[in-house]
Amino acid sequence: MLRVGINGYGTIGKRVADAIRAQPDMEVAGVAKVSPDYVAVGAAEADYPLYAVDEDRADGFHEAGLELAGTVDELVAESDIVVDATPSGIGAENRPLYEHHDTPALFQGGEDATIAEVSFNARANYDEATDADYVRVVSCNTTGLSRFVAPIHEDYGIEKVRTTLIRRGGDPNQIGRGPINDAVPDPVSIPSHHGPDVQTVFPELDIDTIGLKVPTTMMHVHAVNVTLEEEPDSVEEVRNRLREEDRLLLIPEYAGIDGAGTLKDLALDAGRPRGDIWENCIWEESITVEGRDLYCMQAVHQEADVVPENVDAIRSVTGLLDGPESRAVTNETLGIGLRRLETSEERAADRQTAD
Amino acid sequence: MLRVGINGYGTIGKRVADAIRAQPDMEVAGVAKVSPDYVAVGAAEADYPLYAVDEDRADGFHEAGLELAGTVDELVAESDIVVDATPSGIGAENRPLYEHHDTPALFQGGEDATIAEVSFNARANYDEATDADYVRVVSCNTTGLSRFVAPIHEDYGIEKVRTTLIRRGGDPNQIGRGPINDAVPDPVSIPSHHGPDVQTVFPELDIDTIGLKVPTTMMHVHAVNVTLEEEPDSVEEVRNRLREEDRLLLIPEYAGIDGAGTLKDLALDAGRPRGDIWENCIWEESITVEGRDLYCMQAVHQEADVVPENVDAIRSVTGLLDGPESRAVTNETLGIGLRRLETSEERAADRQTAD
Repeated sequence: MLRVGINGYGTIGKRVADAIRAQPDMEVAGVAKVSPDYVAVGAAEADYPLYAVDEDRADGFHEAGLELAGTVDELVAESDIVVDATPSGIGAENRPLYEHHDTPALFQGGEDATIAEVSFNARANYDEATDADYVRVVSCNTTGLSRFVAPIHEDYGIEKVRTTLIRRGGDPNQIGRGPINDAVPDPVSIPSHHGPDVQTVFPELDIDTIGLKVPTTMMHVHAVNVTLEEEPDSVEEVRNRLREEDRLLLIPEYAGIDGAGTLKDLALDAGRPRGDIWENCIWEESITVEGRDLYCMQAVHQEADVVPENVDAIRSVTGLLDGPESRAVTNETLGIGLRRLETSEERAADRQTAD
Repeated sequence: MLRVGINGYGTIGKRVADAIRAQPDMEVAGVAKVSPDYVAVGAAEADYPLYAVDEDRADGFHEAGLELAGTVDELVAESDIVVDATPSGIGAENRPLYEHHDTPALFQGGEDATIAEVSFNARANYDEATDADYVRVVSCNTTGLSRFVAPIHEDYGIEKVRTTLIRRGGDPNQIGRGPINDAVPDPVSIPSHHGPDVQTVFPELDIDTIGLKVPTTMMHVHAVNVTLEEEPDSVEEVRNRLREEDRLLLIPEYAGIDGAGTLKDLALDAGRPRGDIWENCIWEESITVEGRDLYCMQAVHQEADVVPENVDAIRSVTGLLDGPESRAVTNETLGIGLRRLETSEERAADRQTAD
């Protein structure tokens, strides 16, 4: 049983911890946290051994009635591998700690790509992380783009990707972020850093991205254009190709899913933990082919889509399973794929089978 | 086993259905729905018999691969009692249907109070609905105010309530509602209809309310003032009194819960279905006593707080249990109360007991 330490127990860390617990081949060694707040209480309720990042704040944990298992240094010593889910930039400060203990580590996409040997996406380059000591799981947006690009690249070839990222302003629990009433070019320079970030996964890909921020907290939405090398026979062919991908969900028209709010409502209805949507959600009607130009709109849940990628990255680094095996186990254990979004044909077929 | 039909399977209806399923003394006879959308698919996935409100749209259900058990008329005939959770105003149109079948029915707070013999809150007037044929479960805001007012009224007496309701603009899945960038006096007349609505539960209460709408979707927030008849000994006494109430949650300072977003995040962390918060959430620091004036701020989850009230109203109307018994069963089966929001003293005590 691989023992995984989680350094940073916030939006991503708490989700990665729960995902690891759901795996048959790994367990949570403990989680390290700065503040004794409601999220720390949640870690204690979930019976994750709790480690203090900052020894000076240990008293705060005790005052909140929270028991500490030790310091982050001890957690790293206890762990076979660490998932660093600290805020952007802190991962880089933590790397010497992992080096000191000779412990492999995953970093998140908020870190600079130079922090690690490999920038990782489970669908695109699983094998490249095998035996690496330090791996960066790319950001939510880059994960979403990489998953979409991979099958299109394989089947049609890509001349160029041009994508506009309408980014959420902050997460639901971040009251201090914005904008609160604007569509803000961010960054104002073009291409935004997202294109080059996708190139850390697909080095040969020609991609330009434009980024903006809007006052929403639920999901990022991408307006995607891909100029293909080879023209598809039909739009239906492209839709069917995308439907085969395990971490892409096509949203059928009949479902009445008109935005990120309904998507989240659907995920909550389906009993998803925290209403998480691990898959890219592509509006089926938006998938359009004009000659060699492919278009679509997809929503990406910034709190969740990197979670299965972290689980797979752990297996790649430690050599536990190969890529298809790992993705299959991760999908199965998390419950990736939503039967509720089957096409009406699939649903009717299910019904007939049941009859 | 009491058979409960749900007419209207939207935000409230789907939650009430799940809550009924969790009870030992009642079951869902079926749910009636207008549109064959993702929510209808959810009903099918949950194995609730699905009835079409509009026979002309039966084809749409079939095209979506959804099997129908019949029409809403048949559902009413099948049911011992109906929960009408249709949009505001539709309940009034439906009442003749329930009368025709001689089936008792609950309506929601969006209906005019005259639709029913009793306006109901489980904490305040459980017994008044016993043996009534038609009962209106008051709205989310009125429920939140009634729960707060009840214990204060009993212990200190109330000279006057003055409350400002900062209302959410729409639910997360309602893309067509607003405002999107304003704080809108709504209604602009004072008192807003909320005060008189609380008086349908507490006829003698002197209460004025002011209502506004803001561009949020998560929870309503109430800024409450109550002028008491009798001055409390201390603010701590009031806090402890409120802490005893099963459907009031006090938010301790250490938890770092700074808004509705963190409250929802907490509820999702705790594994609450759909992240629902059935209780009023009162910021403990905001509970303030100035002479005979009591102040606080509380958040009310518009999608969820009436759900346990509907369950209790079913038991009151049908005489299944008395008020304290019903509330206890509802609380236990839904999981009302959040251990994560215990005071640090309670948590420390728990820890000592465990040692």
